[in-house]
Amino acid sequence: LKSKLPGVGTTIFSQMSQLATEQQAINLSQGFPDFPASPQLVSALAQYSAQGLNQYAPMPGVMALREQIAALVQHCYGRIICPAAEITVTSGATEALFVAIGATVNPGDEVIIFDPAYDSYAPAIALNGGKAVHIALHAPDYRVNWQQVADAITARTRLIIVNSPHNPSGMVFSHSDWLALQQLVAAHNLYCISDEVYEHMVFDGAMQLSANGFSELAARSFIVSSFGKTFHVTGWKLGYCVAPAALTAEFHKIHQYVTFSSFTPAQYAIADMLKLHSEQVRSLAAFYQQKRDSFATLLANSRFKLLSCQGTYFQLADYSAISELDDVAFCRWLATEHKVAAIPLSVFYQTPPQSRIIRFCFAKQQSTLEAAAEALCQI
Amino acid sequence: LKSKLPGVGTTIFSQMSQLATEQQAINLSQGFPDFPASPQLVSALAQYSAQGLNQYAPMPGVMALREQIAALVQHCYGRIICPAAEITVTSGATEALFVAIGATVNPGDEVIIFDPAYDSYAPAIALNGGKAVHIALHAPDYRVNWQQVADAITARTRLIIVNSPHNPSGMVFSHSDWLALQQLVAAHNLYCISDEVYEHMVFDGAMQLSANGFSELAARSFIVSSFGKTFHVTGWKLGYCVAPAALTAEFHKIHQYVTFSSFTPAQYAIADMLKLHSEQVRSLAAFYQQKRDSFATLLANSRFKLLSCQGTYFQLADYSAISELDDVAFCRWLATEHKVAAIPLSVFYQTPPQSRIIRFCFAKQQSTLEAAAEALCQI
Ligand SMILES: CSCCC(=O)C(=O)O
Ligand SMILES: CSCCC(=O)C(=O)O
Repeated sequence: LKSKLPGVGTTIFSQMSQLATEQQAINLSQGFPDFPASPQLVSALAQYSAQGLNQYAPMPGVMALREQIAALVQHCYGRIICPAAEITVTSGATEALFVAIGATVNPGDEVIIFDPAYDSYAPAIALNGGKAVHIALHAPDYRVNWQQVADAITARTRLIIVNSPHNPSGMVFSHSDWLALQQLVAAHNLYCISDEVYEHMVFDGAMQLSANGFSELAARSFIVSSFGKTFHVTGWKLGYCVAPAALTAEFHKIHQYVTFSSFTPAQYAIADMLKLHSEQVRSLAAFYQQKRDSFATLLANSRFKLLSCQGTYFQLADYSAISELDDVAFCRWLATEHKVAAIPLSVFYQTPPQSRIIRFCFAKQQSTLEAAAEALCQI
Repeated sequence: LKSKLPGVGTTIFSQMSQLATEQQAINLSQGFPDFPASPQLVSALAQYSAQGLNQYAPMPGVMALREQIAALVQHCYGRIICPAAEITVTSGATEALFVAIGATVNPGDEVIIFDPAYDSYAPAIALNGGKAVHIALHAPDYRVNWQQVADAITARTRLIIVNSPHNPSGMVFSHSDWLALQQLVAAHNLYCISDEVYEHMVFDGAMQLSANGFSELAARSFIVSSFGKTFHVTGWKLGYCVAPAALTAEFHKIHQYVTFSSFTPAQYAIADMLKLHSEQVRSLAAFYQQKRDSFATLLANSRFKLLSCQGTYFQLADYSAISELDDVAFCRWLATEHKVAAIPLSVFYQTPPQSRIIRFCFAKQQSTLEAAAEALCQI
């Protein structure tokens, strides 16, 4: 079978999680928590399933959940939106990203993405016959140079994909980043996919911003988020997309044939959480900031040099004081010899820079962070 | 936004279920049961979620489930397969179909599909730049003329999509249908997607057959099935794809970026059902045959003429003794005036025939079938 994606192998997240299992290494690679979800959420799932809500959800999602999403967006970003027409529940943010790219990209279209880029963007663009135009962001702060973006826009540019808070770097867009993005999108009639799956994990008192808060941008955007990240249930594969009615109409045409709908009882359970326990969303930033800080303290005496982390649950670390191995080889060595699994940064670049940087996920119990740090401090 | 699917509207299943809700009609349109799933399944879901199995499943699916799928396939069709390399759990059969089409179809490829065709095939083909070549099957028996298929094969033909038991007609491939398909696929180096979501619903003592049972065919096939149909939980969106290792490798490349993985606790729960309660799978045919027969008896005095149904949980009915309306108008009238929602057949055809036939779903409690029949007998 001739490959549709000849350059693509198994996603790095599967590779590293599998290596972690084989090596019985502490898994700080793939981004997921090792602590339990809230008991209210787990029991709500059981309850709705026992009530018999096990058949197809409506294709755009359960209305109770879409209403809560609308309320959340409005509350966080002061945006008044139309829930029924503008919100679609998806099988994870991954599906939302895939469908939004499918709805937007035609053969020959150029799509601007920022490296290090989440590894699903480029293959989804390629499957739609588009061309990914990579703009590299660099250590130590991974900030976007918007003039460079403006210069990369051509007559074929159709879409720009942004991700703030940014995985893997932890960079968070400032207010002026969002304004610059809005200006470019509006001026060049582009569309935007704003991947905001870490939206509720912004640290050090910084404003939590979103494409939802910039009306001219929102008018041309698919805004994607994830309940898996927000409620510590990555295996529930529940996300959503907010987009203006005309964009949502095109999104639905594809979504209905990609998955049609998502796990029904989980949609009701998450709706309950947003309605009755929204403090769990509001406290998420403080919760993860504490973990970030704790992990940094634990690694203070290591030879890893930690980069700044403004958001997400990922911490970049420079290992150039430790090894001259490239980052893929270093991650294999680290998992095999020191039993800690991490993610190499180079795999998220089209043209990897010379830096020696890896990513740790700190969405872990204190005891896990301590055990990992103990191993990492011995190197 | 320029539409990627200009000819596509909202899927008929959403339209009719919504009309049923608005009209407070008995919903025999979209295919899902109105009775509860088994209590063992519902409690297994609660148990695995409470145990904390709420993070990402492995990308190809939870191993316990893949092993049970392998055992099921082996048991039903006498096939010895390699579970790890050849089985992928997906977010419903819908995702499996979308990914298999994505893995196979390149721009310009021709894909043979049989009308009436499940409505996701053609859009998925179009999104990949392929051309659907429609072969129409006709009342009363909807059998395939394999010579007509052979004549439709060109140098560009790459894939053939079959669906037995066939939704919406209830036609089931005979052993010689499968042999004819296998012969064509092998002779012309085609690939095959075999949509077998109703595989365990074959009636009147007929052999339950599958592409899995024809080794030369299986060697070039993506075989798709659905736990939603088999275990009465269509809202769980859990299906799978069986394909040879080389095909599975390409399938994974796309699946990992479409959904990555599916609802984790449900995978463990379904694995338990297959292991501990496989009699529920074996008894499914008798269970639905009883419903088919009961519904037919209830409609014996109506003016609908029922077509033969060899499998699936759908019953076709000819209403030409009742109305001259086309089937879409008739279904609207039926839901509005007589409070029973059904599916028009013409929407599954590229070139609809002149017949007046609609589809009822009989995956319903006896009381629902009785209430629907009472209304239908008054027309
Ligand atoms: C779908 S697995 C990837 C999880 C994740 O978001 C990450 O580790 O970056
Ligand atoms: C995904 S909704 C369609 C359900 C179904 O298989 C049918 O009604 O034919």
